[in-house]
Amino acid sequence: MNGAPERRAQVVGTGLIGGSIALALRATGWHVTGADRDPSRSDEAVERGVLDAVGHDPAAAVTFVATPVGSIASAVSEALATTSGLVTDVGSVKAPLRALMADPRYVGGHPMAGSELEGLAGANADLFAGRTWVLTPVAGTDDLAFTELRAIISAFGAEVVALAPERHDLLVALVSHVPHLTAATLMRLAEERSTEHRVLLRLAAGGFRDMTRIAAGHPGIWPDICAENRDAIVAELDELIGSLGEVRDLVAAGDRDGLSTLLEAARRARTNLPARVATPELLTELRVPIPDRKGEVARLTTVAAEIDVSLVDIEIAHSAEGDRGVLILLVEAAEAPRLVTALEAEGYVPSASPLEAGP
Amino acid sequence: MNGAPERRAQVVGTGLIGGSIALALRATGWHVTGADRDPSRSDEAVERGVLDAVGHDPAAAVTFVATPVGSIASAVSEALATTSGLVTDVGSVKAPLRALMADPRYVGGHPMAGSELEGLAGANADLFAGRTWVLTPVAGTDDLAFTELRAIISAFGAEVVALAPERHDLLVALVSHVPHLTAATLMRLAEERSTEHRVLLRLAAGGFRDMTRIAAGHPGIWPDICAENRDAIVAELDELIGSLGEVRDLVAAGDRDGLSTLLEAARRARTNLPARVATPELLTELRVPIPDRKGEVARLTTVAAEIDVSLVDIEIAHSAEGDRGVLILLVEAAEAPRLVTALEAEGYVPSASPLEAGP
Repeated sequence: MNGAPERRAQVVGTGLIGGSIALALRATGWHVTGADRDPSRSDEAVERGVLDAVGHDPAAAVTFVATPVGSIASAVSEALATTSGLVTDVGSVKAPLRALMADPRYVGGHPMAGSELEGLAGANADLFAGRTWVLTPVAGTDDLAFTELRAIISAFGAEVVALAPERHDLLVALVSHVPHLTAATLMRLAEERSTEHRVLLRLAAGGFRDMTRIAAGHPGIWPDICAENRDAIVAELDELIGSLGEVRDLVAAGDRDGLSTLLEAARRARTNLPARVATPELLTELRVPIPDRKGEVARLTTVAAEIDVSLVDIEIAHSAEGDRGVLILLVEAAEAPRLVTALEAEGYVPSASPLEAGP
Repeated sequence: MNGAPERRAQVVGTGLIGGSIALALRATGWHVTGADRDPSRSDEAVERGVLDAVGHDPAAAVTFVATPVGSIASAVSEALATTSGLVTDVGSVKAPLRALMADPRYVGGHPMAGSELEGLAGANADLFAGRTWVLTPVAGTDDLAFTELRAIISAFGAEVVALAPERHDLLVALVSHVPHLTAATLMRLAEERSTEHRVLLRLAAGGFRDMTRIAAGHPGIWPDICAENRDAIVAELDELIGSLGEVRDLVAAGDRDGLSTLLEAARRARTNLPARVATPELLTELRVPIPDRKGEVARLTTVAAEIDVSLVDIEIAHSAEGDRGVLILLVEAAEAPRLVTALEAEGYVPSASPLEAGP
């Protein structure tokens, strides 16, 4: 026993993501209680050293809800009712949870990380290191709740990006949901055709294997995701179908220049897609006076995300007077001028000072 | 110097595939001469130990043409005119070369292997080990030329599959060309949308990265492939667009059962997609009397490929009488009955005897 008070967390749903969060929490000094609708799974989590204890912890300062999409709302409500701490979740669709976000202690979240493994066997404290973790603060979110949660998640090695819930849902439809459905469609098409052409799948080399890999994942979560994010998925599928139609027309017309332009643009974009989030060397500290009211941090961090400026750290310094505070933002030095311009356009008056990154 | 006569091969085009073939040939005892339209590349191949010599070898018993699709026909013609040996190529589209296949010494080919590396730096003698290598013998193909080429390629560790040229082109449209164009389209779509949603590409996690990886490849070869295999690509793109439309309708209608069925079928198919060709333990030897005329081996091996029976080895034993021969096929024991039935349906009279695989 040392003198520091124990920091207590709980995880609801101890599958791959919940188990990895529990491990990441324990690795950063938390006592972690956990529960799963399948009790054998939470028992196994204790045996594997993923959890400290099984059950519900009313003293939890933070609750991570990592259940399937369909049961997130009830688990979040229960955690808000039975603890006085922060509550977040890891679901792939955020807008349907907006009503719950009226509670200042609940911030929606979505780690952009996964694994081909399933369940506890794939759980890993480093699953989120170098990955993006979306949080969706809204006007009603408590600034301190948001910055505390952000700090907890940043300690996992993840980069937190703040987005409005609806914006998040539109973007993941494009980079996650529609690609998944496309992979499944390609795989099903090949499989159907292979009854006629039995040798077909023997010709499937690396490219096809890469493209269909995500279709091997457990399909159980997808009907819920498709139901909850229906409009965005339908819109983005229509976009993809339209774009494939354009490509089809280029091929049919023998338009070599058009094909070259398309493929070269895609190559350049794919080559520039960063593998992992890099930690910048040179940092700038921005101090931004803000009115001491709810939602300012959500507003500011969302502005940064809109212009793709990554926030290395966030801190709120409340002034002695009580009605104003100062938000301290750490950003990569090269990006600071862009953020200053964007914040000034929103009526803020930021001041910048250079800083060097620690070891 | 030892007493065995030197086996001489040549490779035209010393990029990734040509260089890997040269290395695989040298590893299996061949003297390899090579040429490239860019002389600095063939010089580099000698420096790197990929080739024994630069230039043209009129004594080559086999020529591998590994140039871009657009210049294969002229390189094959030249090799047929300047050597008396076998000639093959590695192009992604085969039907446009059918006229050349009237020459009994030319057999079209296509190794289903690649690498994210480009050029000689990625060349590797093991690139084809455990991979499928399609050969497209036709009625005019010399049986001995085909079996010799098949043995040379099998020695690289590849599994040879015989297909009619048009069948090959249809199948690669489905498992290679259309997936490539789809990856490029997904990437371009995301990139276009990222000008409006700058944070978009930061949300691209493993699934999106896997699906778009092949779009990072050098696009130079694709306008030729799309031109040469236009009809099959347009037909398969139409199939994919239609299937994505069906998925879109399932999502729009909230049809959970329909989505579950689709995704479960895709998962099962992807899970069963073999990673590499496995060598069977129990083998059966089939002896098939054949008339001693051109095209019998092409016909038999294509029958095997149509029913997805893999041929572990092929040998031709010509009878003393001269007008008949016996084709000896080695197949996995479990698959032998299916092949016997298919061959009998074609009028052959095969006899089977069990055999155990060597060490």
